[in-house]
Amino acid sequence: MRLKPVLHILGQLLQMVGISMIIPLLWGIYYREAETYIFLICFLITVVTGTILKLIFKQEDIRLIEGFGVVSFCWIIIPIFGALPFYLSGELGFIDSYFESISGFTTTGASVINNVEILPKCILFWRSFTHWLGGIGIVVLALIILPALSVGGRQIFLSEPSGPKLDKLKPQVREVGKIIYGIYVLFTGIQIILLILAGMTLFDASCHSFAALATGGFSTKNASIGFYNSSLVEGIIILFMFLGATSFSLHYAALKGKINYLKDNEFMLYFSLLAFSILIVTLDITHHLHENILVAFRHAIFTVISISSTTGYATTDFNLWPDLSKLILLILMLIGGCAGGTAGAIKVIRVLLLIKIGLRELYKIIHPNAIFQIKFNGKIISEDILHGIGGFYFFYMITFGLCSLIMLGFGNDFLTSISSVAATLGGVGPGFSLVGPMATYSFLHPIAKLVLCFCMLAGRLELFTLFVLFVPSYWKE
Amino acid sequence: MRLKPVLHILGQLLQMVGISMIIPLLWGIYYREAETYIFLICFLITVVTGTILKLIFKQEDIRLIEGFGVVSFCWIIIPIFGALPFYLSGELGFIDSYFESISGFTTTGASVINNVEILPKCILFWRSFTHWLGGIGIVVLALIILPALSVGGRQIFLSEPSGPKLDKLKPQVREVGKIIYGIYVLFTGIQIILLILAGMTLFDASCHSFAALATGGFSTKNASIGFYNSSLVEGIIILFMFLGATSFSLHYAALKGKINYLKDNEFMLYFSLLAFSILIVTLDITHHLHENILVAFRHAIFTVISISSTTGYATTDFNLWPDLSKLILLILMLIGGCAGGTAGAIKVIRVLLLIKIGLRELYKIIHPNAIFQIKFNGKIISEDILHGIGGFYFFYMITFGLCSLIMLGFGNDFLTSISSVAATLGGVGPGFSLVGPMATYSFLHPIAKLVLCFCMLAGRLELFTLFVLFVPSYWKE
Repeated sequence: MRLKPVLHILGQLLQMVGISMIIPLLWGIYYREAETYIFLICFLITVVTGTILKLIFKQEDIRLIEGFGVVSFCWIIIPIFGALPFYLSGELGFIDSYFESISGFTTTGASVINNVEILPKCILFWRSFTHWLGGIGIVVLALIILPALSVGGRQIFLSEPSGPKLDKLKPQVREVGKIIYGIYVLFTGIQIILLILAGMTLFDASCHSFAALATGGFSTKNASIGFYNSSLVEGIIILFMFLGATSFSLHYAALKGKINYLKDNEFMLYFSLLAFSILIVTLDITHHLHENILVAFRHAIFTVISISSTTGYATTDFNLWPDLSKLILLILMLIGGCAGGTAGAIKVIRVLLLIKIGLRELYKIIHPNAIFQIKFNGKIISEDILHGIGGFYFFYMITFGLCSLIMLGFGNDFLTSISSVAATLGGVGPGFSLVGPMATYSFLHPIAKLVLCFCMLAGRLELFTLFVLFVPSYWKE
Repeated sequence: MRLKPVLHILGQLLQMVGISMIIPLLWGIYYREAETYIFLICFLITVVTGTILKLIFKQEDIRLIEGFGVVSFCWIIIPIFGALPFYLSGELGFIDSYFESISGFTTTGASVINNVEILPKCILFWRSFTHWLGGIGIVVLALIILPALSVGGRQIFLSEPSGPKLDKLKPQVREVGKIIYGIYVLFTGIQIILLILAGMTLFDASCHSFAALATGGFSTKNASIGFYNSSLVEGIIILFMFLGATSFSLHYAALKGKINYLKDNEFMLYFSLLAFSILIVTLDITHHLHENILVAFRHAIFTVISISSTTGYATTDFNLWPDLSKLILLILMLIGGCAGGTAGAIKVIRVLLLIKIGLRELYKIIHPNAIFQIKFNGKIISEDILHGIGGFYFFYMITFGLCSLIMLGFGNDFLTSISSVAATLGGVGPGFSLVGPMATYSFLHPIAKLVLCFCMLAGRLELFTLFVLFVPSYWKE
């Protein structure tokens, strides 16, 4: 692991992030806000730092193994620069600013800001824009980088069975990256137009489009999507959260005319899981809260898709729902969306393959001499991939358990502790109890906030990418 | 799968269970209780049914595959006969009687009886004796039958790497069974004597010895072990719960002069886990409940060992403890004790190997071309065993999740639901909230009780043994 080429790439990305700060700067000028100057400062700091890094550390071909360093370093350090606008605005302390920024770039949507409506528009825009920037990074990560790094069974998505060669990775990243970027921009654009037609301003439509497609969850309103009380707005947001949480390679195929959704095992399981959860939650809240079944259905469909896509938008305070619905939401937080999108958590494909691994064990003890191969979308999955998935699942649960214990150690109640970890590790945002959808994470102890920052990063980087940095042999030449 | 030889073995076991009903009969005569006649009836029904089954269905050599049927059928049907004394006494309805009986034979210790102190002594004795009978069955199951059946990675305990041949299984069961039985009787005897010396009556000493060594948890007192308020009694119970939860093959080696405890990876991890949990719980309850640290330590050591050994005895209402301590107990409920004892749940050895599987994945992505083999006690563990363990862990969590959802569906609160499932699936007994150590399971809906009966059985039979019965191809010739 050589640090120099990693720092060169970091420099490049910092330049891009810095340049993207011009957009909130323009909004600040448009709304004639006093805080606009902050973005000029941040723009300069970020671009200059990026340029210095690029100049000092020369470009070198990076090896596959250094990919972990690139991804982890960038996702740890870029949010520091992304936190500057929050910090310089005087609204938040540094840990809070970093929390908000990491939450943005990892498309989590957990917030420490109690009243977003009093924030300057330029700051609000930046907050939502970090989701959008993070989201595109995540899709590239999910479809190109993690498979190449064989993280947690991700190599299942490699087009070539042997895996990309070191020198092939870079052009592949460029080419596939461009296509994904195109779809991402297209979807964002369509959503902005639809939301404007549904009655939102361009500003609000943009912010909510960034957050929905990236399955982030930051809103410009304290009451989240509930503010609009419009089934049209909700429908549009539902659609794009769902698109964000499903595979962009399926969307790509669909745009080229090949509709593969119904043939994709992961998509179909995700769809079934959503339908089943919406049904149970609708019945549960109808029964326990004596709500009209149509109202219950409207809240259930929005909340289930919001949580399972790991967005975290709310139209109602689901913290007040009965415990059965809450446990379903908690399980959805752990499962998350499909692997080729912007959603976080364990991912549906891993759950599907874990079920198959479990069932195979059952068959194997009945037929000890038979050989069973596990298939996904008709293709045989190698034992290496299955081991990777098993290891990932175990680490996910261990991280969930240990971080929950730490949160409890800070004196938080049971539901606050486990749901805050599930919601940050999975990139959801709001949890239950004191971190419910109508509350924020601001009251937490600063160290507890850093633990949740770790959860957001670890979940986003699919654990292994971050954890290998703690293995001493990784650093040896 | 042929049912006839299975029914023959069931007949044999029913005869043995029937004969063992003579002991509570004798206690009934000694205490001149009116309910004594019940055991005469139950003795006759059970022995006669057993004899009829033995006569109708001839002895045949059973194949390995039929072992699942034998184990599952016996563990489902024997508790029906074991429930008769409760039912005939008029104290409980049939579902409640079956619940209490399954809870006894699976050494769970979850109870539906609100006031045990008013029960006739003969019934109370039978209740505790079912633990003892179940306990010996479990050790034989754990050390001999499940390894032969390759359930959830259990083949790790086979002395021969290729596994026992079909014809070898029976004499092996007999021989090892006798040794284990000897140790089991010896430990029970020593414990009874020690508890009498500590001030208990022979009756109470016997009942508590049965329950502690079998890691069951039924007591003859409503306040459980807390009734005695004696650190001597607590110390003795702690020792035997710990012995019950650790491997009987280690005890066997120790009695032959080979002290292998410190060389056994599983034992050492279990010991470390207990020490760590006791430390955290002591500090947590000292801090939050402002208890004297020595009092806190006394409650912590008893409760941690009681829960992690899946016994479920209580000296204090740990339902009132802070949430951090509760989550530690909940995690201990899921982990359970060592694999070669009477404890339930996932087992420490599986957790140990799961950690190693996870770490291997981490090393593998750093060194993609290296081959890493996982060892336990110095021996290389085959990939088949590792797959079995992964599958088991996944099924355990799925069962835990789905049954918790069902319990929530019956309107129970979150903590009651998840802890009741964790406590029955793991064979612990008491959970938290409405099923805490000072409460019972009596208030639950009858169907919810049957769900928990399923959990007790599934957990005890290590899931696969029961689940294979639901696979259609198991029933085909």
